[in-house]
Amino acid sequence: MSTAPPGASRLVLHEHRFFDSDAAVRRSAFELYEQTRDLPLVCPHGHVDPALLAENGSFPEPAALLILPDHYIFRMLHSRGVPLEALGIPTRDGAPVEGNPRRIWQLFAEHYYLFRGTPTGAWLDHEMSEVFGVQWQLTGGTAQRIYDELDAKLRSDEFRPRALYDRFNIEVLVTTDRATDSLEHHRTIRNSDWSGRVLPTFRPDALFRIASPQWSAELAELARAQGVDLLDYHAFREALRARRRYFQEMGGTSTDHAVVVPRTGWLPAAEVQHVFERAVRGDATADDQDRFEAHMLMEMAGMSIDDGLVMQLHAGALRNHDRVLFDRFGPDKGGDIPVATEFTRNLQPLLNAFGNDARLTLVLFTLDEATYARELAPLAGHYPAVTLGPPWWFHDSIEGMRRFRERTTETAGIYNTAGFNDDTRAFCSIPARHDLARRMDANFLGGLVARHVIGMPDAREMARALAYDLPRQTYKLATVPDTMQPRGGAL
Amino acid sequence: MSTAPPGASRLVLHEHRFFDSDAAVRRSAFELYEQTRDLPLVCPHGHVDPALLAENGSFPEPAALLILPDHYIFRMLHSRGVPLEALGIPTRDGAPVEGNPRRIWQLFAEHYYLFRGTPTGAWLDHEMSEVFGVQWQLTGGTAQRIYDELDAKLRSDEFRPRALYDRFNIEVLVTTDRATDSLEHHRTIRNSDWSGRVLPTFRPDALFRIASPQWSAELAELARAQGVDLLDYHAFREALRARRRYFQEMGGTSTDHAVVVPRTGWLPAAEVQHVFERAVRGDATADDQDRFEAHMLMEMAGMSIDDGLVMQLHAGALRNHDRVLFDRFGPDKGGDIPVATEFTRNLQPLLNAFGNDARLTLVLFTLDEATYARELAPLAGHYPAVTLGPPWWFHDSIEGMRRFRERTTETAGIYNTAGFNDDTRAFCSIPARHDLARRMDANFLGGLVARHVIGMPDAREMARALAYDLPRQTYKLATVPDTMQPRGGAL
Amino acid sequence: MSTAPPGASRLVLHEHRFFDSDAAVRRSAFELYEQTRDLPLVCPHGHVDPALLAENGSFPEPAALLILPDHYIFRMLHSRGVPLEALGIPTRDGAPVEGNPRRIWQLFAEHYYLFRGTPTGAWLDHEMSEVFGVQWQLTGGTAQRIYDELDAKLRSDEFRPRALYDRFNIEVLVTTDRATDSLEHHRTIRNSDWSGRVLPTFRPDALFRIASPQWSAELAELARAQGVDLLDYHAFREALRARRRYFQEMGGTSTDHAVVVPRTGWLPAAEVQHVFERAVRGDATADDQDRFEAHMLMEMAGMSIDDGLVMQLHAGALRNHDRVLFDRFGPDKGGDIPVATEFTRNLQPLLNAFGNDARLTLVLFTLDEATYARELAPLAGHYPAVTLGPPWWFHDSIEGMRRFRERTTETAGIYNTAGFNDDTRAFCSIPARHDLARRMDANFLGGLVARHVIGMPDAREMARALAYDLPRQTYKLATVPDTMQPRGGAL
Repeated sequence: MSTAPPGASRLVLHEHRFFDSDAAVRRSAFELYEQTRDLPLVCPHGHVDPALLAENGSFPEPAALLILPDHYIFRMLHSRGVPLEALGIPTRDGAPVEGNPRRIWQLFAEHYYLFRGTPTGAWLDHEMSEVFGVQWQLTGGTAQRIYDELDAKLRSDEFRPRALYDRFNIEVLVTTDRATDSLEHHRTIRNSDWSGRVLPTFRPDALFRIASPQWSAELAELARAQGVDLLDYHAFREALRARRRYFQEMGGTSTDHAVVVPRTGWLPAAEVQHVFERAVRGDATADDQDRFEAHMLMEMAGMSIDDGLVMQLHAGALRNHDRVLFDRFGPDKGGDIPVATEFTRNLQPLLNAFGNDARLTLVLFTLDEATYARELAPLAGHYPAVTLGPPWWFHDSIEGMRRFRERTTETAGIYNTAGFNDDTRAFCSIPARHDLARRMDANFLGGLVARHVIGMPDAREMARALAYDLPRQTYKLATVPDTMQPRGGAL
Repeated sequence: MSTAPPGASRLVLHEHRFFDSDAAVRRSAFELYEQTRDLPLVCPHGHVDPALLAENGSFPEPAALLILPDHYIFRMLHSRGVPLEALGIPTRDGAPVEGNPRRIWQLFAEHYYLFRGTPTGAWLDHEMSEVFGVQWQLTGGTAQRIYDELDAKLRSDEFRPRALYDRFNIEVLVTTDRATDSLEHHRTIRNSDWSGRVLPTFRPDALFRIASPQWSAELAELARAQGVDLLDYHAFREALRARRRYFQEMGGTSTDHAVVVPRTGWLPAAEVQHVFERAVRGDATADDQDRFEAHMLMEMAGMSIDDGLVMQLHAGALRNHDRVLFDRFGPDKGGDIPVATEFTRNLQPLLNAFGNDARLTLVLFTLDEATYARELAPLAGHYPAVTLGPPWWFHDSIEGMRRFRERTTETAGIYNTAGFNDDTRAFCSIPARHDLARRMDANFLGGLVARHVIGMPDAREMARALAYDLPRQTYKLATVPDTMQPRGGAL
Repeated sequence: MSTAPPGASRLVLHEHRFFDSDAAVRRSAFELYEQTRDLPLVCPHGHVDPALLAENGSFPEPAALLILPDHYIFRMLHSRGVPLEALGIPTRDGAPVEGNPRRIWQLFAEHYYLFRGTPTGAWLDHEMSEVFGVQWQLTGGTAQRIYDELDAKLRSDEFRPRALYDRFNIEVLVTTDRATDSLEHHRTIRNSDWSGRVLPTFRPDALFRIASPQWSAELAELARAQGVDLLDYHAFREALRARRRYFQEMGGTSTDHAVVVPRTGWLPAAEVQHVFERAVRGDATADDQDRFEAHMLMEMAGMSIDDGLVMQLHAGALRNHDRVLFDRFGPDKGGDIPVATEFTRNLQPLLNAFGNDARLTLVLFTLDEATYARELAPLAGHYPAVTLGPPWWFHDSIEGMRRFRERTTETAGIYNTAGFNDDTRAFCSIPARHDLARRMDANFLGGLVARHVIGMPDAREMARALAYDLPRQTYKLATVPDTMQPRGGAL
């Protein structure tokens, strides 16, 4: 690609990108970033499909790889009136959608200007340039040439998942898996001669949504997975405990729980049994489910103290807000909208029961930034169990990271935070996301140095902690289990 | 005014004012601003009295022009203990108030220091300097000389409303009008030989407040305006539809709706009829009104899809919080205080019904900045119908605009926002407000350039979009209706 | 301490610390700070024990002085798994805790890195360097040498409380005292020949918590203090009025009220009497207490109009969130967590009754920063009675102060804010806290100057107002009562 496409502009990633332009901040920030940029990537929470790395087949063509699975991208085009059908998003009822990937790619490229100033734009530029070596900015004019280039590379062995995993310098990659998942892909990877470390996360949400029409199927799957009957709450709870053990045997170190409201609190033993029985009969109400979910978070925290699994709580996303798109295309189509979230009162029962026990690690995620300084930093700065997860989702961005550090550090310090996680399904975007996070953490620390709040020696330790030590320690990923080979990249 | 008043300081507007002082940001920001500063002013939402431009008489003397109608000013003096009576604000019961405009002006000037660091201070300085050519800072010492100067200019033809409209380079000025308004002033302007474009906005709020003692009078006015009896809900709805059509005939392109809580949702047909009947009998409850307003927002959105009027929603101002001042002086006396606002759940019914229809443009305004990143940007970044209005009221300011862009751009981009509108009753402050907004948008973009988030070519397009293209497109003001002359200034 | 401890780093406070690194901002900020840095310290609200200054004994050894009473410090160590027992925090049941202050100090020093980037770290460094002359950074390696140095100094007369009060250049120090307090220490100070001005604040919260098991004892104490029977609400109210008078006689100029929810509103006369009777019988419910507290805030505001005491309201801290630590160690052990707070509707009854009366000064404090721009600045920018207290507690920090000024100034100006107060129990940290606040206010104003929002002459007046004039005026501390000597430091 030595000749310029007509009217094309060079795609150049500035080496100082995202740092504040003030010279004192930038100098310190860049110095700190240079220390962390090449540290191995620790990925303790995300949504990469483990089958990718188990099968290690070629990725699909560019549109299927980069557009179809990425709701950050197609929600933005949708918001400007581009139908999801034109982007090839499959419909639930099989109604036809655009099937020509080059036309999808062209449409995307023509709307790429919408991502100016967004993290999606920053990640994609990084991915194009650093992962795929693209030299031109994506526009309608360059779309087809870039498509050709990506497509050719994606067919090569150097771009297979395991090769990229190694090239990305990933130390460990943790997936998110249904509690009833067989973890066959994780098993395949463990039994392979590839040294990559791909671990599961135990996510039992669907088993706690007892008022959902899908619950009985979920329960049946749990029964099948464990080979037992789940006739009462006691058996249900023991099956969960057993599943957790299985995830641990497969290398898992954490659980994950998504709730709209982070309510917690025990139900009395008799009542939880009654509620469970109503659920089995298909009679559970929404209120039953609310109280059951609150109870199960207590159980999960208690089990974490026993088995040591780190507990993650993602609160405040109202899923499938757009029922029209949900009915037509299914979940995860951009229609998840945050709501105001209350942690102080909702978490009090759980924290009073378990929060002072340093064996519990509870990592909190929010979409409501008003809680950073008001509730989350004070909780993390008090309870031994509480750690703050990185800025989540919409806030996994330049300004979002700035706000997170500015609002939590003064009360909680940085050592009550979990460092970065990329939370992505888009495997090829992993380096871009970690790079942006390392830049922003370096920039935050560089700002403290420039204002003489901390000195450079402290900043160096803090930068490394945020980029590497804290995610490893928080998620208990530093101790390599016996059954796995240590990786050369580990520090 | 060639000799300095004793002790007076020069009033000088720095050409780099409001830009960040960092050299890299300022350089880019100023370059971007230089491209947008002279673009025509598009004013798609505001509260200028159309009679001003219909009659084109001289403005009143300075105190009556600048102080009496401006609640930004007198609320601040009131907050420091200056009685509204001393500022000449008329009482409802006719109790006497200060009648000497020079004394009012003097009192204002002596308290002008209260506005240091406020947008009101910035706007007034701009207005004094750029509109009226005042060369000295306003203080108790300079008050009377400046009064003389303003007063003399206001009597001249160059300072009549239409002359200023042209001098301000206004391309279109949109007013806000009760649904029952005859729009006689708009008609006068259209029938005149003056080429200014002054359009109405359809604001039916008073007709939806069925529990208010004023409602029956409002309804009667609607019946009279349409020359029909409004005996049932169906007739009421059709009368609204007809009024919308009338506003469109008079050039209107939008509606406006103010609510405390942005509740939306259909009432069943039978129930809405019952509620309407209770209202006609004077028996509607507060709860009836809440549900009726929620229903009428659904109707309005549906009608917007039919007739194409852009729908604006201003949520979260608790009006007339100060009952003492309200009882003594009436509405709009500074006693409107914001409340926390919830959009995600409240708008779900409306957005599920109409939000994916690109024929609807719903412009959202909030006084609760916590919703910017949490709710509004995710909604705008998903639903084709949703666009974010500019920072409203208290947030129409340097820091307010910075927060708005920093918190919405990463999720919604800039192309899901509506650009600026001045929202003012103070005609002479219009250039100051647009200038400040153009500076702050340039500063935001200049910051992105300085941090290498975007390049200068993109920034140039974005600056123009924010200053000119987006308000024109969002409010459908680009297409000049047949009955109107295109203006020279239009680009 | 002329030779360096092995591996120790110099403790150096940079003269430009905390200022933005941008040259234009820093230059203006530093110039403004140089004007305010040596102004006397006005301390209108805090929690220093008046016995300290009444008795003027030596302070205890370093651990007992700096660690045991400071929940900012031990909550952070607790959050990282250090047991409070190991820090010597006494248990309620007398279970043994660490008793060796050197071991406590060592443990603290080894965890001092947790405070990097926190205000506690900044204050401690200032205190070490400026108050105690320590020249080395605190680490595990330097801990014992620094302990020795502090301990020796604390035994000297120059480090007794009154000597430090004078050296700190404190103009007035206001304590916070239970409504039933005898104020004996204040009396001792007034009757002494020492010229320091130490005034009480009337804090009647415990008397309003009628559903608390402690209430009857509180009531009995009030009766004893006033030498009357408190058989009915009328007598109770008159006793409060008399206590307020007593506090005023002892120099008090203010009251303080802490509530979770800032509810206000009258109870009808008959009802308040019934509620009070239920309380006397020990039958008051939580709801009774809520309504009674709301009523008492109305009474307090009314009495403030009569007697002129400034009324402070601290809203939104959920006390003793951590019941485990509360049960083991008692209150104020770091387990106070903020909650979202609503002011607009909750304060409406009080503000409608008294808010337009300039004789009332109501100083509002919040832990919910979302209310700064949304509710508090609009209220302060309208009601003559409302003034905003400085950023409270977790927000008394570099970034917290920045957010406060950025979000309140544009709507309320600076003249509706109360300047700084240190709110501390840690007497030796007072200079550090004022210094940080003066730096941050200078930095905020310097930023306005650098962006040409205000000019340097205005900024100078504003800097002095924030550092000195506003706290003095707001709390009516400028008028020296006849019975007290004016202090030389007063300007």
